[in-house]
Amino acid sequence: MGKLYVIGIGPGSIENMTLRAKEAIEKSDIIVGYTKYVDLIKTLAKGKEIFSTGMKGEEERCKEALRLSKDNIVSIISTGDAGIYGMAGLILELKDGEDVEVIPGITASSAAASVLGAPIMHDNCNISLSDLMTPYELIKKRIEMAAEGDFVISLYNPKSKGRPHYLRESLETIKKYRAGNTPVAVVKHALRDGQDVKLFNLDSFDDSQVDMMCIVIIGNSQSYIKQGEFITPRGYKL
Amino acid sequence: MGKLYVIGIGPGSIENMTLRAKEAIEKSDIIVGYTKYVDLIKTLAKGKEIFSTGMKGEEERCKEALRLSKDNIVSIISTGDAGIYGMAGLILELKDGEDVEVIPGITASSAAASVLGAPIMHDNCNISLSDLMTPYELIKKRIEMAAEGDFVISLYNPKSKGRPHYLRESLETIKKYRAGNTPVAVVKHALRDGQDVKLFNLDSFDDSQVDMMCIVIIGNSQSYIKQGEFITPRGYKL
Ligand SMILES: C[S@@+](CC[C@H](N)C(=O)[O-])C[C@H]1O[C@@H](n2cnc3c(N)ncnc32)[C@H](O)[C@@H]1O
Ligand SMILES: C[S@@+](CC[C@H](N)C(=O)[O-])C[C@H]1O[C@@H](n2cnc3c(N)ncnc32)[C@H](O)[C@@H]1O
Repeated sequence: MGKLYVIGIGPGSIENMTLRAKEAIEKSDIIVGYTKYVDLIKTLAKGKEIFSTGMKGEEERCKEALRLSKDNIVSIISTGDAGIYGMAGLILELKDGEDVEVIPGITASSAAASVLGAPIMHDNCNISLSDLMTPYELIKKRIEMAAEGDFVISLYNPKSKGRPHYLRESLETIKKYRAGNTPVAVVKHALRDGQDVKLFNLDSFDDSQVDMMCIVIIGNSQSYIKQGEFITPRGYKL
Repeated sequence: MGKLYVIGIGPGSIENMTLRAKEAIEKSDIIVGYTKYVDLIKTLAKGKEIFSTGMKGEEERCKEALRLSKDNIVSIISTGDAGIYGMAGLILELKDGEDVEVIPGITASSAAASVLGAPIMHDNCNISLSDLMTPYELIKKRIEMAAEGDFVISLYNPKSKGRPHYLRESLETIKKYRAGNTPVAVVKHALRDGQDVKLFNLDSFDDSQVDMMCIVIIGNSQSYIKQGEFITPRGYKL
């Protein structure tokens, strides 16, 4: 009898992975995942059979993982949390009797927040700007609602060549509701090799360095920068 | 020279903690935290000096942690992620030259989601129903915006004796925007001893068992239950 672990490996460094995720990978016979993500855990995957395809092969990868899990211990890996824009959903949608266990990981907004200070201390939302499977009209509506509700906003998949202007348009919308000095941070490769942090505010924001390896966090009306740290107060009277 | 680690221990079991959090606790001289949370990691804290106070002593605890960190290696712990309704914000607000490092953990919404299936696969938000430091008017506004924006919604601090009706009122608001068969899950003690899962929908929801040890997750308009698993599709055409 086989088993499929659906694993969130966290931001992409072994130390920021959970013990449970590490152990599941270690006891797996086969690792399934996007090539770049398998690379992030290559010290753990060494000697194991690897099934990896390019970015667009997600459905194929999930079907293969399910098929292989009938007779093998298999791990299919996502970065961050497998349950947030990761592989958990597709696996469970396709699952038909296989033994599947979802192992959570630290999602990009938490990883980036830890590097910045404490930007997502209060009510917050995660929005993906990818329009591959979500109409841009719905994405815009969510940005508008999140801005009006004064949520701290974490933007996943913030910018790609096919939709270079969504990020700028999103920040314009948020600016209708928040002051120009509201902090905006761009974290590239949070908690993994190549980490880079840039701090802006809504007025000074420059999206030229933003790509798909980045997450963008926009503060709420109470957020501020203190000696280079991005803080959203919980509301203690100090 | 001392050091202060601000640690998210994850949902409350060692195996769902990161390697980095575990190592930081192990190398600390002093552990600071709410009594019940220190209990969750007692095998790691054994033999160390413990500074713990009751729930309301948060500011006092943070000040003590900062003071102690001048000459000692200190860990101040939160459950879940220290950066989401945890101690990271208060520590950084109060910090005045101390050496502080924030170590992220798996937040309750990710932990609960992994137990349920894949409910927060798409755009989602975290809202706390605690009105200790946030006016109920603002909480209600955020519920309304999150509902209208069709976000998956995770409710932290869902119900306490002082505000028994906020949860029910929140679900009434969400019902204005979503079908009665929208899945609603209550997860108590996710990924720690005493874990308990209850699945409802907006029409059948019963809040009688909900307390502060629970998180409540409400699906978006696309969410569904498949053989006991709560799934929010990402949008793949299968
Ligand atoms: C398809 S989503 C996967 C999200 C992942 N499952 C998670 O929970 O973090 C890919 C997006 O996640 C964000 N991301 C993932 N890991 C990141 C990291 N270490 N640093 C910055 N952004 C990251 C980027 O916005 C990227 O475009
Ligand atoms: C003050 S908040 C702390 C949140 C924490 N820092 C986090 O990121 O998960 C306390 C609330 O978190 C939620 N919570 C924390 N750990 C949980 C767990 N293991 N299972 C269910 N809910 C949990 C509950 O809603 C609880 O009322």
